[in-house]
Amino acid sequence: MSGTNEYRVEHDSMGEVRVPADARWRAQTQRAVENFPISGQRLERAHIAALARIKAAAATVNAELGVVEKDMAEAIAAAAEEVAEGRWDEHFPVDVFQTGSGTSSNMNTNEVLATLATERLGRPVHPNDHVNASQSSNDVFPSSIHIAATAAVTGELIPALTHLAAALERKGAEFAEVVKSGRTHLMDATPVTLGQEFNGYAAQVRYGVERLNAALPRLAELPLGGTAVGTGINTPPGFSAAVIAEVARATGLPLTEARDHFEAQGARDGLVETSGQLRTIAVSLTKICNDLRWMSSGPRTGLAEIALPDLQPGSSIMPGKVNPVIPEAVLMVAAQVIGNDATVTTAGASGNFELNVMLPVIAKNLLESIRLLANASRLLADRTVDGVTANVERAREYAESSPSVVTPLNRYIGYEEAAKVAKRALAERRTIRETVLEGGYVERGDLTLEQLDAALDVLRMTRP
Amino acid sequence: MSGTNEYRVEHDSMGEVRVPADARWRAQTQRAVENFPISGQRLERAHIAALARIKAAAATVNAELGVVEKDMAEAIAAAAEEVAEGRWDEHFPVDVFQTGSGTSSNMNTNEVLATLATERLGRPVHPNDHVNASQSSNDVFPSSIHIAATAAVTGELIPALTHLAAALERKGAEFAEVVKSGRTHLMDATPVTLGQEFNGYAAQVRYGVERLNAALPRLAELPLGGTAVGTGINTPPGFSAAVIAEVARATGLPLTEARDHFEAQGARDGLVETSGQLRTIAVSLTKICNDLRWMSSGPRTGLAEIALPDLQPGSSIMPGKVNPVIPEAVLMVAAQVIGNDATVTTAGASGNFELNVMLPVIAKNLLESIRLLANASRLLADRTVDGVTANVERAREYAESSPSVVTPLNRYIGYEEAAKVAKRALAERRTIRETVLEGGYVERGDLTLEQLDAALDVLRMTRP
Amino acid sequence: MSGTNEYRVEHDSMGEVRVPADARWRAQTQRAVENFPISGQRLERAHIAALARIKAAAATVNAELGVVEKDMAEAIAAAAEEVAEGRWDEHFPVDVFQTGSGTSSNMNTNEVLATLATERLGRPVHPNDHVNASQSSNDVFPSSIHIAATAAVTGELIPALTHLAAALERKGAEFAEVVKSGRTHLMDATPVTLGQEFNGYAAQVRYGVERLNAALPRLAELPLGGTAVGTGINTPPGFSAAVIAEVARATGLPLTEARDHFEAQGARDGLVETSGQLRTIAVSLTKICNDLRWMSSGPRTGLAEIALPDLQPGSSIMPGKVNPVIPEAVLMVAAQVIGNDATVTTAGASGNFELNVMLPVIAKNLLESIRLLANASRLLADRTVDGVTANVERAREYAESSPSVVTPLNRYIGYEEAAKVAKRALAERRTIRETVLEGGYVERGDLTLEQLDAALDVLRMTRP
Amino acid sequence: MSGTNEYRVEHDSMGEVRVPADARWRAQTQRAVENFPISGQRLERAHIAALARIKAAAATVNAELGVVEKDMAEAIAAAAEEVAEGRWDEHFPVDVFQTGSGTSSNMNTNEVLATLATERLGRPVHPNDHVNASQSSNDVFPSSIHIAATAAVTGELIPALTHLAAALERKGAEFAEVVKSGRTHLMDATPVTLGQEFNGYAAQVRYGVERLNAALPRLAELPLGGTAVGTGINTPPGFSAAVIAEVARATGLPLTEARDHFEAQGARDGLVETSGQLRTIAVSLTKICNDLRWMSSGPRTGLAEIALPDLQPGSSIMPGKVNPVIPEAVLMVAAQVIGNDATVTTAGASGNFELNVMLPVIAKNLLESIRLLANASRLLADRTVDGVTANVERAREYAESSPSVVTPLNRYIGYEEAAKVAKRALAERRTIRETVLEGGYVERGDLTLEQLDAALDVLRMTRP
Repeated sequence: MSGTNEYRVEHDSMGEVRVPADARWRAQTQRAVENFPISGQRLERAHIAALARIKAAAATVNAELGVVEKDMAEAIAAAAEEVAEGRWDEHFPVDVFQTGSGTSSNMNTNEVLATLATERLGRPVHPNDHVNASQSSNDVFPSSIHIAATAAVTGELIPALTHLAAALERKGAEFAEVVKSGRTHLMDATPVTLGQEFNGYAAQVRYGVERLNAALPRLAELPLGGTAVGTGINTPPGFSAAVIAEVARATGLPLTEARDHFEAQGARDGLVETSGQLRTIAVSLTKICNDLRWMSSGPRTGLAEIALPDLQPGSSIMPGKVNPVIPEAVLMVAAQVIGNDATVTTAGASGNFELNVMLPVIAKNLLESIRLLANASRLLADRTVDGVTANVERAREYAESSPSVVTPLNRYIGYEEAAKVAKRALAERRTIRETVLEGGYVERGDLTLEQLDAALDVLRMTRP
Repeated sequence: MSGTNEYRVEHDSMGEVRVPADARWRAQTQRAVENFPISGQRLERAHIAALARIKAAAATVNAELGVVEKDMAEAIAAAAEEVAEGRWDEHFPVDVFQTGSGTSSNMNTNEVLATLATERLGRPVHPNDHVNASQSSNDVFPSSIHIAATAAVTGELIPALTHLAAALERKGAEFAEVVKSGRTHLMDATPVTLGQEFNGYAAQVRYGVERLNAALPRLAELPLGGTAVGTGINTPPGFSAAVIAEVARATGLPLTEARDHFEAQGARDGLVETSGQLRTIAVSLTKICNDLRWMSSGPRTGLAEIALPDLQPGSSIMPGKVNPVIPEAVLMVAAQVIGNDATVTTAGASGNFELNVMLPVIAKNLLESIRLLANASRLLADRTVDGVTANVERAREYAESSPSVVTPLNRYIGYEEAAKVAKRALAERRTIRETVLEGGYVERGDLTLEQLDAALDVLRMTRP
Repeated sequence: MSGTNEYRVEHDSMGEVRVPADARWRAQTQRAVENFPISGQRLERAHIAALARIKAAAATVNAELGVVEKDMAEAIAAAAEEVAEGRWDEHFPVDVFQTGSGTSSNMNTNEVLATLATERLGRPVHPNDHVNASQSSNDVFPSSIHIAATAAVTGELIPALTHLAAALERKGAEFAEVVKSGRTHLMDATPVTLGQEFNGYAAQVRYGVERLNAALPRLAELPLGGTAVGTGINTPPGFSAAVIAEVARATGLPLTEARDHFEAQGARDGLVETSGQLRTIAVSLTKICNDLRWMSSGPRTGLAEIALPDLQPGSSIMPGKVNPVIPEAVLMVAAQVIGNDATVTTAGASGNFELNVMLPVIAKNLLESIRLLANASRLLADRTVDGVTANVERAREYAESSPSVVTPLNRYIGYEEAAKVAKRALAERRTIRETVLEGGYVERGDLTLEQLDAALDVLRMTRP
Repeated sequence: MSGTNEYRVEHDSMGEVRVPADARWRAQTQRAVENFPISGQRLERAHIAALARIKAAAATVNAELGVVEKDMAEAIAAAAEEVAEGRWDEHFPVDVFQTGSGTSSNMNTNEVLATLATERLGRPVHPNDHVNASQSSNDVFPSSIHIAATAAVTGELIPALTHLAAALERKGAEFAEVVKSGRTHLMDATPVTLGQEFNGYAAQVRYGVERLNAALPRLAELPLGGTAVGTGINTPPGFSAAVIAEVARATGLPLTEARDHFEAQGARDGLVETSGQLRTIAVSLTKICNDLRWMSSGPRTGLAEIALPDLQPGSSIMPGKVNPVIPEAVLMVAAQVIGNDATVTTAGASGNFELNVMLPVIAKNLLESIRLLANASRLLADRTVDGVTANVERAREYAESSPSVVTPLNRYIGYEEAAKVAKRALAERRTIRETVLEGGYVERGDLTLEQLDAALDVLRMTRP
């Protein structure tokens, strides 16, 4: 907006309202701007786009069904296309903390489209009678959340997770022979390979994609067509099916109509479920990033099994300090997603009768979580995982120094003797191999040197 | 336990331990009893059963693979069968807050089975060498959680939800013609039927079943076979597949082997995901129970659209006070499940490297949530939903008194006049019909009396 | 920023970086901008101000202690004053999801101040050597969170809550004689006054202020002076006390130095505690707003005991529909604060050794919660509570129709007869008074008409 | 209970109920047993005691005020004393998931006391008319939660935390000279002492005590006297003050009467706040236990700066494996407390009008959290902290090998040269001292050998 101090006067059923002269919005938007000076946060970009997509499709179908004239519908649809693309975002000034049905944002969309369509058409287009025809905030606004979330999950998050999984798998292959000590309870355990660990992380991430796909059937279900209370009052027959088909066509998303329109407006369980999957993905990323941080800890006083790429100076005092900044940022994203999920749960449990009126806060938290996870996953792949290098020697040293590598010796010297070897090695800070040799087991013929070396082959211990 | 003060002495690698004379457990269990006097809570019944099922199957497979002698394996399996059935629960005294791997409970199982099998067999059976052969706490204990949860979800929760959905649907059919006012933002809206609402609740509950089934593929995946760190060290080839097949056969559950054994031991994401579905179900039940409470509120100062069965005296002072005690109890169950889910999330995010060591607390919270939801759902169906009666007259009064029923008159008298009618009706506390008649619209010929009555047919407004 | 495509080249220890030509930031900020394209969200305004306040005070004290030259310190302090006032906010482009220590934002502050001070002074001011002298990100950044939160709690939230409590108390006085039915379990109970309810809400809000004050001693404690790891390495004696005194003086806040600098950098418990108090306040507001929504529900099919101010048109279809939009917005704020608190808890539990590296996400969520609660509380007072009107008649009708008003008759006709009266009144939908009169109790002389009217005086029942 | 199958018949206003022959409870308890077969969990021990304390005090005061006869009051009080001591716990069979007001448990208490007092007195004592005289579930039950929580916080948790803090401080003193490398971002930083770290943990724990004390004024406030809806209907003047004084006297707790009885019954914010403090303590313990686990990790492939006491055999395969089982158990307690807090928050936000009806679930979660934290803190002190030993040599090695110890050389050789030294030391895996000597700085006269050794004195770097 130009920031001018000039105003024009708009009317609605409650009277006159002063609106900034160059604003495309009208009276109801302006009232909402004044009623909700709370957070300064607006709807997510993807959310505005989804609202516009519905309006475009509704205009087209309304024309087909004879509810709105054809040229007017075309003007609305063309304007909606521009809004969907983001050209008019600054004309969506309503705070996300507003009326719980999102009516203010639905009316904001109606008003902006009415103004833009009027400009195109040269004759008045009414926000309610024409742009909102056959619709209600109560079915449009929740539908817009489901559409935006479906689009973001399938178009952004799943590709980003797939990208991350592929990066992890490349490292899984690269590190297939890098043997290291396993750790359980943080304590020395039998060997694993670094590649096994990275493939495990990749599996976690790919399971995240499965989780999203598992929730998708209920996320992609739209309340559209229910209008005010789920009964579809004032909607012509065939409207909702046609609009949903049109939005599905325009977006390429697998959208469907709600199987039960009373569930679809009274509850937002599909969003709560999706949020649960997001926070499970956040839990996966937390595990992965903590492992990466600990493996790269040091370089002198930590584990130092791997090194992460150096992205920015650590400290002005301490040269060589490479902080794991991307994993830290991803961990903070995960914490945010876990909190956003608590908000979505609280809001999702707060519905009464024919409408959940915590919709905008659900939308904000769910869409933010998807966006943060997508950006963070991509960043983690590109700026950290891709550049991980292994400290092969140190990793092998760990593997060999772990007292637990004594385990395969049981069959030669028995559990009791093996235990003694392990304890002695630990006490004297030596390797198991040195301790066995010194213990005279080879000389006594309990096992040959070849058998000893085969048994203590830590890489072999990582394979079935 | 008999509560006697007599003891016997048991040994383990750390030395001697005094154990109650009639305890079937041994030294390591006893150490754990003494190390963890924290909550007084033990493993869930279903969890002990799952541990025993694994031990029985492992004994059978160990015998087939020649790891354990056949008669000994049979003795272990027979003892495990008794434990699975719950005959020895008091011999599982270890606190749920224990070592994070559940090793103490795995050893408790091994020790009890060793003692019972020894009694059967007449010769010593060793907890580690025989009962635990080819296994590790690190793969057995998490597997037992997945098995117990899969069993409880498929055997208890899904049937209970299905039972509840059917009860709600019966009421949906019974109340199909009971018209009432819809409410959005808690404010008067256009009519719905009570049946539509109950069918909406049923849909929420049936979607809960879908949610559980969607998570099942990852819940039913077992880490068994990974042993200490996921590599399967010290496990004979074919062991894990055979054990899982045997447990699946014995329990009838759709169990599978982990696709990636490092994901399967390093993370517990499948449990976090399942917990997320449980809390989504809790959110659904919250909505349903709050609607039931409000619809039955009153009887004089509330909505009083329905009545719930009278289960227990409300107050010693106030006769006729029927409190919605079952919905209240279910709401508390939902709050508990939401909190349990926060615990599972926190615990699930706390894994490092080759093992998550928050397993017992995850098990406790997840299994408790499943059990609580199953019991609460069944109770809600049997003691509340089944007995709901509609106050048909009051519901219709509401429907007719809602100013929003003016909506269909738009086509006869226009939106402006309709708005005036609505406001006048509201101000004068009269029905829309009375106000229209008094307003002279019929006399003036705007619409006929028949048209008026048809337009104001509130039941018709509930249908497309 | 102008959006120009022109760049200049800056250097740091890792090499050259291209920076927008008119940016006041330098190389390290630019690296962070490129490293963290995650959320698009920047530090809260209050947070930037707090960082600047520390820098101004540090410059002054560094000059006093001879660490930085006087004229340079003055230039830094003057520049910091401008930053504190918000004049350079667009030069703080670093994403809130960044390195966990907030080093990037500390360096952003150092760089912008170095540039501005250089412009003033006409000779080079170094971000690290001069602006950051005697400091470390590890003590400065967490201190800035505590300062910003202390300022926002004492300067915004406590006044807003006090304002809300006063508004509620005014209504408490206004409604002192408005008798209504109490409700427990949502069911009819003995009478209360609407004033008692509003005073109860005011008490909840005033307790919120107590809660904030109770946490303040630990919130207002600053880690400043601990530098890198809590030991205060490279800080001259007296520095931290003097800087804290100076910030306290400049801001008027009750700031103190950490009693234990290792607690103060290793943990962020004081912020977790404060967040807990905020979510308790959110819980209070949830109760209040839900009561307001239910009391104003209807107007025809709900409780309709009060009316809320009409702020914006409800629906284009349903005239007279006044939705409780401000309470809804406040409920969404409460849900957000509850979620933000979960994020702060998760982040607060994630510290290791000498530093918690989830600082920026803690800052974002804590400061957002304070700001949202302050704005929402003020709005609730001004746009809803102030304009509440009571439906006195309806409220009294409810009070008198509640079967529980029979209670005081026990002493005249006994509990058994009273119970019969109550049940009959309920069944016949009549008042207790009518039922008593019809029942012949007065004629029989059980009590006089005067006694009956005195006993059934519902207002009297609301007083001890 | 004896488990006999014999029954007797009891009556209440709804008719006859069969009660186990030897049960001291009566009809309403029995109905609740049958209505709520949900969790199998009963009220916490401390909770039953608190209910009994209220009944004893109420009996005494009712006698003083002439409401109940003196000998009957004495019989009730004597019976209540036995219940408070735990002698009749098995006669409190009602599930914790019950009516939301806790009425069933209040009636359970009334019925058991009536039976016991009747046995003592030899004439009938009525549960409602005598035991419950001047009271209501709605003020008694929430009061009992506040009393039980106040008792548990002051009598168990604060002493346990104080005990833990003292243990940590003893280690802080013992390890005062044990220098080690600090770690920020998990990366090498400048030195600290192990003693500084343990004192930091102690400070966290002592702040936990401050947090509990800060919440105590609102936790110790009792709704007693409000009876049904806060108005105190049917309570004689002076009753509540006298009862609270008597309970305070009998328990030694700082109990007070609610300042606003409508806040006190409509909301449970004081419990939500206390739960928030508990979860902040859980966050503190999480940090401490994670640090202990990491410091003791290894012994060969981890940090191994300290060793924890060996409490139970780790693994049957891996000798020498000492798992940090107590810290793990404490971490699980912390996760449980965080989840319990989410339940309390959800429940606390669910009140309507004159009563929060999520009381039993709040009680269960809050009291369990207090008990778990108390037991866990004491265990952590006694079985882990007390036995911690430092690996002094390894810790010093770390301190000296950290590249950051170069920092104090800035003043002799300048930051640029110091940086080169640090990088070379890191690349060549040598100490800073070796690298400086080899670099010829001493020979060139940049600093003397004495100055070098003084500057590199890592212990000195830990002091201001």
